[in-house]
Amino acid sequence: MSSGYQIDETSLADLEAERRLYGPFTQAIRDLVDVGIRTTAPAHEVERARAEIEEITARLRRAGLSGPYGVRFRTDGASRAWGNAVVGLRNAVAPPLVITKDERGVRSEFHLGAAYEGPPGSVHGGVLSLVLDQMLGQAAGAGGRPGMTATLTLTYRKRTPLGDLSSRAWIDRAEDHKTWARGEICGPEGVTVEAEGLFILPRWARGRVDSGLPPVESFE
Amino acid sequence: MSSGYQIDETSLADLEAERRLYGPFTQAIRDLVDVGIRTTAPAHEVERARAEIEEITARLRRAGLSGPYGVRFRTDGASRAWGNAVVGLRNAVAPPLVITKDERGVRSEFHLGAAYEGPPGSVHGGVLSLVLDQMLGQAAGAGGRPGMTATLTLTYRKRTPLGDLSSRAWIDRAEDHKTWARGEICGPEGVTVEAEGLFILPRWARGRVDSGLPPVESFE
Repeated sequence: MSSGYQIDETSLADLEAERRLYGPFTQAIRDLVDVGIRTTAPAHEVERARAEIEEITARLRRAGLSGPYGVRFRTDGASRAWGNAVVGLRNAVAPPLVITKDERGVRSEFHLGAAYEGPPGSVHGGVLSLVLDQMLGQAAGAGGRPGMTATLTLTYRKRTPLGDLSSRAWIDRAEDHKTWARGEICGPEGVTVEAEGLFILPRWARGRVDSGLPPVESFE
Repeated sequence: MSSGYQIDETSLADLEAERRLYGPFTQAIRDLVDVGIRTTAPAHEVERARAEIEEITARLRRAGLSGPYGVRFRTDGASRAWGNAVVGLRNAVAPPLVITKDERGVRSEFHLGAAYEGPPGSVHGGVLSLVLDQMLGQAAGAGGRPGMTATLTLTYRKRTPLGDLSSRAWIDRAEDHKTWARGEICGPEGVTVEAEGLFILPRWARGRVDSGLPPVESFE
Protein backbone atom coordinates (compact mmCIF):
# COMPACT_ATOMS: atom_id res chain seq x y z
CA MET A 1 0.00 0.00 0.00
CA SER A 2 1.21 3.47 -0.76
CA SER A 3 0.27 7.15 -0.84
CA GLY A 4 -0.54 7.53 2.85
CA TYR A 5 -3.33 4.99 3.25
CA GLN A 6 -2.72 3.26 6.55
CA ILE A 7 -3.68 -0.20 7.66
CA ASP A 8 -5.91 0.15 10.72
CA GLU A 9 -5.35 -2.42 13.43
CA THR A 10 -7.84 -0.98 15.90
CA SER A 11 -10.13 -3.70 17.25
CA LEU A 12 -13.84 -3.45 16.49
CA ALA A 13 -14.56 -2.77 20.18
CA ASP A 14 -12.02 0.07 20.33
CA LEU A 15 -13.38 1.44 17.07
CA GLU A 16 -16.86 1.52 18.56
CA ALA A 17 -15.57 3.25 21.70
CA GLU A 18 -13.83 5.88 19.56
CA ARG A 19 -16.99 6.42 17.60
CA ARG A 20 -18.95 6.97 20.81
CA LEU A 21 -16.33 9.43 22.08
CA TYR A 22 -15.59 11.47 18.97
CA GLY A 23 -19.05 11.44 17.36
CA PRO A 24 -20.76 13.62 20.01
CA PHE A 25 -17.57 15.66 20.57
CA THR A 26 -17.40 16.65 16.90
CA GLN A 27 -21.13 17.30 16.83
CA ALA A 28 -20.62 19.76 19.70
CA ILE A 29 -18.06 21.59 17.54
CA ARG A 30 -20.50 21.64 14.59
CA ASP A 31 -23.14 23.22 16.82
CA LEU A 32 -20.58 25.83 17.90
CA VAL A 33 -19.76 26.58 14.24
CA ASP A 34 -23.48 27.13 13.59
CA VAL A 35 -24.04 29.38 16.61
CA GLY A 36 -20.82 31.25 15.76
CA ILE A 37 -22.42 32.40 12.52
CA ARG A 38 -25.81 33.25 13.99
CA THR A 39 -25.28 34.56 17.50
CA THR A 40 -26.14 38.15 18.34
CA ALA A 41 -24.80 37.88 21.89
CA PRO A 42 -23.17 41.04 23.30
CA ALA A 43 -19.50 41.65 22.46
CA HIS A 44 -18.27 40.74 25.96
CA GLU A 45 -19.99 37.32 25.69
CA VAL A 46 -18.35 36.69 22.31
CA GLU A 47 -14.95 37.70 23.74
CA ARG A 48 -15.44 35.41 26.73
CA ALA A 49 -16.40 32.52 24.45
CA ARG A 50 -13.30 33.13 22.32
CA ALA A 51 -11.00 32.99 25.37
CA GLU A 52 -12.62 29.77 26.58
CA ILE A 53 -12.44 28.14 23.14
CA GLU A 54 -8.75 29.06 22.86
CA GLU A 55 -8.10 27.43 26.22
CA ILE A 56 -9.89 24.21 25.22
CA THR A 57 -7.91 24.12 21.97
CA ALA A 58 -4.62 24.60 23.83
CA ARG A 59 -5.43 21.69 26.16
CA LEU A 60 -6.42 19.35 23.31
CA ARG A 61 -3.29 20.28 21.39
CA ARG A 62 -0.98 18.89 24.07
CA ALA A 63 -1.22 15.47 22.41
CA GLY A 64 -2.04 15.10 18.75
CA LEU A 65 -1.13 14.03 15.25
CA SER A 66 1.61 16.08 13.61
CA GLY A 67 -0.29 16.08 10.30
CA PRO A 68 -3.81 15.51 8.98
CA TYR A 69 -5.90 12.47 9.94
CA GLY A 70 -5.37 10.54 6.70
CA VAL A 71 -7.38 7.51 5.73
CA ARG A 72 -7.07 4.28 7.70
CA PHE A 73 -8.59 1.09 6.55
CA ARG A 74 -9.07 -2.28 8.02
CA THR A 75 -7.94 -5.49 6.39
CA ASP A 76 -11.65 -6.28 5.88
CA GLY A 77 -11.73 -3.36 3.43
CA ALA A 78 -13.76 -0.97 5.59
CA SER A 79 -12.21 2.46 5.59
CA ARG A 80 -12.11 5.08 8.32
CA ALA A 81 -11.88 8.46 6.64
CA TRP A 82 -12.69 10.31 9.86
CA GLY A 83 -10.87 13.45 8.74
CA ASN A 84 -12.69 13.59 5.39
CA ALA A 85 -14.26 16.97 4.55
CA VAL A 86 -17.62 15.37 3.61
CA VAL A 87 -18.01 12.16 5.60
CA GLY A 88 -15.46 12.61 8.40
CA LEU A 89 -16.85 11.62 11.81
CA ARG A 90 -14.14 13.77 13.43
CA ASN A 91 -14.30 16.68 11.00
CA ALA A 92 -16.70 19.49 11.98
CA VAL A 93 -16.47 20.91 8.45
CA ALA A 94 -18.25 17.72 7.28
CA PRO A 95 -22.08 17.71 7.74
CA PRO A 96 -21.17 14.66 7.94
CA LEU A 97 -22.81 12.60 5.21
CA VAL A 98 -23.67 9.00 6.03
CA ILE A 99 -23.59 7.25 2.67
CA THR A 100 -25.19 3.85 2.21
CA LYS A 101 -25.35 1.42 -0.68
CA ASP A 102 -28.64 0.82 -2.44
CA GLU A 103 -29.61 -1.47 -5.32
CA ARG A 104 -28.36 1.00 -7.91
CA GLY A 105 -25.37 2.69 -6.25
CA VAL A 106 -25.22 4.87 -3.13
CA ARG A 107 -27.54 7.29 -1.39
CA SER A 108 -27.57 9.71 1.52
CA GLU A 109 -30.07 11.85 3.42
CA PHE A 110 -28.51 14.82 5.17
CA HIS A 111 -29.10 18.28 6.57
CA LEU A 112 -27.21 21.42 5.52
CA GLY A 113 -27.57 24.41 7.84
CA ALA A 114 -26.23 27.97 7.98
CA ALA A 115 -22.59 26.86 7.65
CA TYR A 116 -23.19 25.76 4.06
CA GLU A 117 -24.81 28.95 2.76
CA GLY A 118 -24.05 30.66 -0.53
CA PRO A 119 -26.93 32.78 -1.87
CA PRO A 120 -29.22 33.82 1.02
CA GLY A 121 -31.08 30.79 2.41
CA SER A 122 -29.58 28.52 -0.23
CA VAL A 123 -26.81 25.97 -0.26
CA HIS A 124 -23.54 27.26 -1.77
CA GLY A 125 -23.17 25.90 -5.32
CA GLY A 126 -19.68 24.75 -4.42
CA VAL A 127 -20.92 22.81 -1.38
CA LEU A 128 -23.24 20.91 -3.71
CA SER A 129 -20.25 20.03 -5.90
CA LEU A 130 -18.32 18.99 -2.77
CA VAL A 131 -21.11 16.61 -1.78
CA LEU A 132 -21.48 15.23 -5.31
CA ASP A 133 -17.75 14.65 -5.75
CA GLN A 134 -17.84 12.44 -2.65
CA MET A 135 -21.09 10.71 -3.67
CA LEU A 136 -19.91 9.89 -7.19
CA GLY A 137 -16.53 8.69 -5.90
CA GLN A 138 -18.24 6.39 -3.42
CA ALA A 139 -20.65 5.12 -6.07
CA ALA A 140 -17.62 4.10 -8.14
CA GLY A 141 -16.03 2.46 -5.08
CA ALA A 142 -19.23 0.69 -4.03
CA GLY A 143 -19.38 -0.84 -7.50
CA GLY A 144 -15.86 -2.24 -7.01
CA ARG A 145 -14.36 0.48 -9.20
CA PRO A 146 -12.72 3.01 -6.86
CA GLY A 147 -10.89 5.95 -8.40
CA MET A 148 -9.64 9.50 -8.06
CA THR A 149 -11.71 12.28 -9.61
CA ALA A 150 -10.39 13.18 -13.08
CA THR A 151 -13.26 15.40 -14.25
CA LEU A 152 -16.49 16.53 -12.65
CA THR A 153 -19.31 18.45 -14.34
CA LEU A 154 -22.17 20.01 -12.40
CA THR A 155 -25.43 21.23 -13.90
CA TYR A 156 -27.43 23.45 -11.57
CA ARG A 157 -31.16 23.14 -12.33
CA LYS A 158 -32.54 25.37 -9.58
CA ARG A 159 -31.68 26.78 -6.17
CA THR A 160 -31.11 24.29 -3.38
CA PRO A 161 -32.65 25.55 -0.12
CA LEU A 162 -30.74 25.00 3.14
CA GLY A 163 -32.36 22.18 5.13
CA ASP A 164 -33.05 18.50 4.60
CA LEU A 165 -31.68 17.14 1.33
CA SER A 166 -30.90 13.82 -0.30
CA SER A 167 -28.47 12.58 -2.89
CA ARG A 168 -28.05 9.50 -5.05
CA ALA A 169 -25.15 8.41 -7.26
CA TRP A 170 -24.46 5.42 -9.49
CA ILE A 171 -22.03 4.05 -12.06
CA ASP A 172 -23.02 5.04 -15.58
CA ARG A 173 -20.36 3.09 -17.51
CA ALA A 174 -16.85 1.70 -17.10
CA GLU A 175 -13.81 0.87 -19.21
CA ASP A 176 -10.43 -0.44 -17.98
CA HIS A 177 -9.41 1.72 -15.05
CA LYS A 178 -11.94 4.44 -15.88
CA THR A 179 -15.39 4.75 -14.37
CA TRP A 180 -18.04 7.30 -15.26
CA ALA A 181 -20.46 7.99 -12.43
CA ARG A 182 -23.56 10.15 -12.28
CA GLY A 183 -25.56 11.59 -9.42
CA GLU A 184 -27.97 14.23 -8.23
CA ILE A 185 -29.12 16.20 -5.22
CA CYS A 186 -32.79 16.58 -4.36
CA GLY A 187 -34.51 19.24 -2.30
CA PRO A 188 -38.18 19.39 -1.29
CA GLU A 189 -39.07 20.30 -4.89
CA GLY A 190 -37.08 17.63 -6.69
CA VAL A 191 -33.69 17.48 -8.38
CA THR A 192 -31.68 20.70 -8.02
CA VAL A 193 -28.22 19.64 -9.29
CA GLU A 194 -26.93 16.88 -11.53
CA ALA A 195 -23.35 15.69 -11.79
CA GLU A 196 -21.24 13.51 -14.00
CA GLY A 197 -17.69 12.53 -13.14
CA LEU A 198 -14.86 10.44 -14.47
CA PHE A 199 -12.93 8.47 -11.86
CA ILE A 200 -9.60 6.81 -12.59
CA LEU A 201 -7.96 4.10 -10.47
CA PRO A 202 -4.50 5.38 -9.48
CA ARG A 203 -1.56 3.41 -10.85
CA TRP A 204 -0.28 2.49 -7.35
CA ALA A 205 -3.60 0.85 -6.43
CA ARG A 206 -4.15 -1.20 -9.58
CA GLY A 207 -2.35 -4.31 -8.34
CA ARG A 208 -4.49 -4.42 -5.22
CA VAL A 209 -7.77 -4.17 -7.10
CA ASP A 210 -6.73 -6.43 -10.00
CA SER A 211 -5.67 -9.18 -7.58
CA GLY A 212 -9.15 -9.27 -6.07
CA LEU A 213 -8.35 -7.78 -2.65
CA PRO A 214 -11.30 -5.97 -1.13
CA PRO A 215 -11.23 -2.57 -2.80
CA VAL A 216 -10.72 0.61 -0.84
CA GLU A 217 -14.25 2.00 -1.02
CA SER A 218 -13.19 5.49 -1.90
CA PHE A 219 -10.03 7.48 -2.37
CA GLU A 220 -11.51 10.49 -0.67
CA MET B 1 -34.33 43.88 -4.30
CA SER B 2 -35.53 40.35 -3.73
CA SER B 3 -34.46 36.82 -2.85
CA GLY B 4 -33.13 37.54 0.63
CA TYR B 5 -30.35 40.00 -0.14
CA GLN B 6 -30.53 42.66 2.57
CA ILE B 7 -29.49 46.29 2.45
CA ASP B 8 -26.85 46.80 5.14
CA GLU B 9 -27.10 50.07 7.05
CA THR B 10 -24.27 49.34 9.47
CA SER B 11 -21.87 52.30 9.65
CA LEU B 12 -18.29 51.77 8.52
CA ALA B 13 -17.07 52.17 12.11
CA ASP B 14 -19.52 49.55 13.43
CA LEU B 15 -18.60 47.26 10.56
CA GLU B 16 -14.93 47.54 11.51
CA ALA B 17 -15.74 46.84 15.17
CA GLU B 18 -17.72 43.74 14.16
CA ARG B 19 -14.85 42.56 12.01
CA ARG B 20 -12.44 42.95 14.95
CA LEU B 21 -14.80 41.02 17.23
CA TYR B 22 -15.94 38.17 14.99
CA GLY B 23 -12.73 37.66 12.97
CA PRO B 24 -10.62 36.31 15.90
CA PHE B 25 -13.67 34.58 17.46
CA THR B 26 -14.32 32.58 14.30
CA GLN B 27 -10.61 31.87 13.91
CA ALA B 28 -10.67 30.35 17.41
CA ILE B 29 -13.48 28.02 16.26
CA ARG B 30 -11.46 27.07 13.14
CA ASP B 31 -8.50 26.16 15.36
CA LEU B 32 -10.83 24.02 17.48
CA VAL B 33 -12.15 22.26 14.36
CA ASP B 34 -8.54 21.46 13.40
CA VAL B 35 -7.52 20.18 16.84
CA GLY B 36 -10.78 18.21 17.03
CA ILE B 37 -9.61 16.13 14.07
CA ARG B 38 -6.03 15.68 15.25
CA THR B 39 -6.06 15.46 19.04
CA THR B 40 -5.00 12.26 20.75
CA ALA B 41 -5.85 13.59 24.21
CA PRO B 42 -7.21 11.02 26.71
CA ALA B 43 -10.95 10.27 26.58
CA HIS B 44 -11.71 12.17 29.80
CA GLU B 45 -10.11 15.33 28.30
CA VAL B 46 -12.22 14.98 25.15
CA GLU B 47 -15.36 14.49 27.27
CA ARG B 48 -14.52 17.55 29.35
CA ALA B 49 -13.94 19.63 26.20
CA ARG B 50 -17.29 18.48 24.81
CA ALA B 51 -19.15 19.56 27.96
CA GLU B 52 -17.44 22.97 27.94
CA ILE B 53 -18.13 23.51 24.23
CA GLU B 54 -21.80 22.63 24.74
CA GLU B 55 -22.01 25.18 27.54
CA ILE B 56 -20.44 27.93 25.39
CA THR B 57 -22.86 27.11 22.57
CA ALA B 58 -25.86 27.27 24.92
CA ARG B 59 -24.78 30.72 26.15
CA LEU B 60 -24.24 32.09 22.64
CA ARG B 61 -27.60 30.69 21.55
CA ARG B 62 -29.54 32.88 23.98
CA ALA B 63 -29.60 35.64 21.36
CA GLY B 64 -29.29 34.92 17.69
CA LEU B 65 -30.71 34.94 14.19
CA SER B 66 -33.60 32.55 13.61
CA GLY B 67 -32.18 31.54 10.21
CA PRO B 68 -28.88 31.63 8.31
CA TYR B 69 -26.75 34.78 8.04
CA GLY B 70 -27.75 35.68 4.49
CA VAL B 71 -25.95 38.26 2.40
CA ARG B 72 -26.06 41.92 3.35
CA PHE B 73 -24.78 44.61 1.13
CA ARG B 74 -24.15 48.26 1.46
CA THR B 75 -25.56 50.89 -0.86
CA ASP B 76 -21.99 51.43 -2.12
CA GLY B 77 -22.19 47.89 -3.59
CA ALA B 78 -19.84 46.21 -1.11
CA SER B 79 -21.31 42.95 0.14
CA ARG B 80 -20.97 41.25 3.50
CA ALA B 81 -21.36 37.53 2.94
CA TRP B 82 -20.09 36.68 6.42
CA GLY B 83 -21.97 33.38 6.52
CA ASN B 84 -20.63 32.22 3.14
CA ALA B 85 -19.09 28.72 3.13
CA VAL B 86 -15.95 29.90 1.30
CA VAL B 87 -15.34 33.54 2.19
CA GLY B 88 -17.48 33.99 5.33
CA LEU B 89 -15.66 35.90 8.09
CA ARG B 90 -18.08 34.38 10.63
CA ASN B 91 -18.20 30.88 9.15
CA ALA B 92 -15.64 28.43 10.57
CA VAL B 93 -16.30 26.05 7.68
CA ALA B 94 -14.77 28.71 5.38
CA PRO B 95 -10.94 28.78 5.28
CA PRO B 96 -11.85 31.79 4.71
CA LEU B 97 -10.64 32.92 1.31
CA VAL B 98 -9.75 36.58 0.91
CA ILE B 99 -10.33 37.27 -2.78
CA THR B 100 -8.89 40.38 -4.41
CA LYS B 101 -9.19 41.85 -7.88
CA ASP B 102 -6.18 41.84 -10.17
CA GLU B 103 -5.66 43.17 -13.71
CA ARG B 104 -7.19 40.07 -15.25
CA GLY B 105 -9.89 39.01 -12.79
CA VAL B 106 -9.58 37.83 -9.18
CA ARG B 107 -6.98 35.99 -7.14
CA SER B 108 -6.49 34.52 -3.68
CA GLU B 109 -3.72 32.98 -1.61
CA PHE B 110 -4.97 30.67 1.13
CA HIS B 111 -4.11 27.75 3.39
CA LEU B 112 -6.06 24.49 3.59
CA GLY B 113 -5.32 22.30 6.60
CA ALA B 114 -6.55 18.97 7.97
CA ALA B 115 -10.23 20.00 7.81
CA TYR B 116 -10.15 19.99 4.01
CA GLU B 117 -8.66 16.53 3.50
CA GLY B 118 -9.82 13.95 0.98
CA PRO B 119 -7.11 11.48 -0.05
CA PRO B 120 -4.42 11.28 2.68
CA GLY B 121 -2.45 14.53 2.85
CA SER B 122 -4.35 15.96 -0.11
CA VAL B 123 -7.16 18.45 -0.51
CA HIS B 124 -10.58 16.84 -1.11
CA GLY B 125 -11.46 17.11 -4.82
CA GLY B 126 -14.82 18.55 -3.83
CA VAL B 127 -13.21 21.26 -1.68
CA LEU B 128 -11.27 22.36 -4.77
CA SER B 129 -14.55 22.62 -6.68
CA LEU B 130 -16.07 24.57 -3.77
CA VAL B 131 -13.20 27.08 -3.91
CA LEU B 132 -13.35 27.35 -7.70
CA ASP B 133 -17.12 27.86 -7.78
CA GLN B 134 -16.67 30.87 -5.50
CA MET B 135 -13.61 32.17 -7.42
CA LEU B 136 -15.28 31.95 -10.83
CA GLY B 137 -18.48 33.54 -9.48
CA GLN B 138 -16.50 36.43 -8.04
CA ALA B 139 -14.49 36.82 -11.27
CA ALA B 140 -17.80 37.25 -13.10
CA GLY B 141 -18.99 39.75 -10.47
CA ALA B 142 -15.70 41.68 -10.44
CA GLY B 143 -16.07 42.12 -14.18
CA GLY B 144 -19.50 43.68 -13.64
CA ARG B 145 -21.24 40.48 -14.73
CA PRO B 146 -22.51 38.77 -11.54
CA GLY B 147 -24.47 35.54 -11.89
CA MET B 148 -25.58 32.28 -10.36
CA THR B 149 -23.68 29.12 -11.30
CA ALA B 150 -25.45 27.27 -14.15
CA THR B 151 -22.73 24.75 -15.00
CA LEU B 152 -19.27 24.07 -13.59
CA THR B 153 -16.66 21.70 -15.00
CA LEU B 154 -13.55 20.71 -13.10
CA THR B 155 -10.50 19.03 -14.61
CA TYR B 156 -8.16 17.55 -12.03
CA ARG B 157 -4.56 17.55 -13.34
CA LYS B 158 -2.78 16.19 -10.28
CA ARG B 159 -3.15 15.85 -6.52
CA THR B 160 -3.35 19.07 -4.53
CA PRO B 161 -1.36 18.77 -1.30
CA LEU B 162 -2.81 20.29 1.88
CA GLY B 163 -1.00 23.53 2.72
CA ASP B 164 -0.46 26.89 1.04
CA LEU B 165 -2.29 27.27 -2.27
CA SER B 166 -3.36 29.98 -4.66
CA SER B 167 -6.15 30.46 -7.15
CA ARG B 168 -6.94 32.79 -10.02
CA ALA B 169 -10.13 33.25 -12.05
CA TRP B 170 -11.18 35.46 -14.94
CA ILE B 171 -13.96 36.07 -17.43
CA ASP B 172 -13.45 34.08 -20.61
CA ARG B 173 -16.39 35.42 -22.66
CA ALA B 174 -19.83 36.95 -22.19
CA GLU B 175 -23.14 37.19 -24.01
CA ASP B 176 -26.34 38.89 -22.78
CA HIS B 177 -26.91 37.68 -19.22
CA LYS B 178 -24.47 34.78 -19.57
CA THR B 179 -20.84 34.87 -18.50
CA TRP B 180 -18.28 32.10 -18.96
CA ALA B 181 -15.49 32.23 -16.41
CA ARG B 182 -12.34 30.14 -16.06
CA GLY B 183 -9.97 29.57 -13.19
CA GLU B 184 -7.34 27.33 -11.64
CA ILE B 185 -5.76 26.30 -8.37
CA CYS B 186 -1.99 26.12 -7.96
CA GLY B 187 0.05 24.13 -5.45
CA PRO B 188 3.82 24.22 -4.97
CA GLU B 189 4.24 22.29 -8.23
CA GLY B 190 1.95 24.35 -10.43
CA VAL B 191 -1.63 24.05 -11.62
CA THR B 192 -3.51 21.14 -10.06
CA VAL B 193 -7.12 21.83 -11.09
CA GLU B 194 -8.77 23.85 -13.85
CA ALA B 195 -12.37 24.99 -13.94
CA GLU B 196 -14.82 26.47 -16.40
CA GLY B 197 -18.23 27.74 -15.39
CA LEU B 198 -21.27 29.40 -16.87
CA PHE B 199 -22.87 32.09 -14.70
CA ILE B 200 -26.30 33.53 -15.44
CA LEU B 201 -27.67 36.77 -14.01
CA PRO B 202 -30.94 35.92 -12.22
CA ARG B 203 -34.06 37.49 -13.69
CA TRP B 204 -34.89 39.40 -10.48
CA ALA B 205 -31.50 41.17 -10.53
CA ARG B 206 -31.42 42.18 -14.19
CA GLY B 207 -33.14 45.55 -13.67
CA ARG B 208 -30.56 46.51 -11.07
CA VAL B 209 -27.58 45.67 -13.23
CA ASP B 210 -29.06 46.99 -16.50
CA SER B 211 -29.86 50.33 -14.87
CA GLY B 212 -26.22 50.85 -13.99
CA LEU B 213 -26.50 50.45 -10.19
CA PRO B 214 -23.33 49.14 -8.60
CA PRO B 215 -23.53 45.38 -9.18
CA VAL B 216 -23.69 42.94 -6.33
CA GLU B 217 -20.20 41.46 -6.53
CA SER B 218 -21.30 37.88 -6.21
CA PHE B 219 -24.44 35.89 -5.62
CA GLU B 220 -22.68 33.49 -3.33
